Amino acid sequence: MDAMDAIRSRRSVRAFKTNPIPQKIIESIIDAGRLAPTARNVQPWKFVVVRDVKSRAQLAKLATTGPFIAEAPVCVAVFCEDTKYWMEDGCAATENIIIAARAHDLGHCWVAGDKKPYAGEVSQLLGVPVGHRLVSLIALGYPKEDPSPVPKKSLEEVLHWERF
Amino acid sequence: MDAMDAIRSRRSVRAFKTNPIPQKIIESIIDAGRLAPTARNVQPWKFVVVRDVKSRAQLAKLATTGPFIAEAPVCVAVFCEDTKYWMEDGCAATENIIIAARAHDLGHCWVAGDKKPYAGEVSQLLGVPVGHRLVSLIALGYPKEDPSPVPKKSLEEVLHWERF
Repeated sequence: MDAMDAIRSRRSVRAFKTNPIPQKIIESIIDAGRLAPTARNVQPWKFVVVRDVKSRAQLAKLATTGPFIAEAPVCVAVFCEDTKYWMEDGCAATENIIIAARAHDLGHCWVAGDKKPYAGEVSQLLGVPVGHRLVSLIALGYPKEDPSPVPKKSLEEVLHWERF
Repeated sequence: MDAMDAIRSRRSVRAFKTNPIPQKIIESIIDAGRLAPTARNVQPWKFVVVRDVKSRAQLAKLATTGPFIAEAPVCVAVFCEDTKYWMEDGCAATENIIIAARAHDLGHCWVAGDKKPYAGEVSQLLGVPVGHRLVSLIALGYPKEDPSPVPKKSLEEVLHWERF
């Protein structure tokens, strides 16, 4: 898929078919995350790919805004070592994963991480050592329905030339 | 350009030709930022496109890790309203801008924002109202040279199946 088409046609999806995602496609998507920009080339990220039904049910229960994690065949949990730019690096990797998922005709939803009260329990559930922060939980799967369009600010509203 | 190719071939560039970037291409790139995912559809972002030579020279002087902002024909300053997920949203938009730049054969470098001591002065220089945070400064331009390859961790090092 063309890069600009992938970016422009991306929508969050919250209803998924249960069909599995081929392992090669999962690896290609995580590889996109691995190749994100990272301050000083620190690469603080770790990607935990959760396919197990029981684990996803537990994640869905913990992540109050992500009940669909129980249905989506894959949940990618993005963690970073607690470095100065862990959040920037982790979000760049998350966005790469999302664009790559779209390019593979997969639906996705970015579910919040560190600022949520469940972040610690998610880390515990997935055996993540102390010193890592949860950046995001990304539900991935083939979309069950076309996501409804979301109203977006126009380019004119958000683009300033030279000064704010 | 294919989306996966854009993601995989992306490298930070720190030496730019001074050729201007056509306005339509700049708008297409900022549009990619506008269409990034955003928690609860808040869209807290504002993109200030700086082409003015004097302003870029001042930004380059302030941003100690971005002296090349003086040479690159465009610097995009990404700001967000200080919302709960301003950093996540702003970094997703920054990464979209970077992938879109790559898809248009432009080089880029993501220069850090909020955590740097110069963030306040950058906001002042660009007339940004109180209540906004600087997410990133993105230098954009046609690359003067091929960036040298940067060593990256392997997929095996960063991908965990089921548990960390």
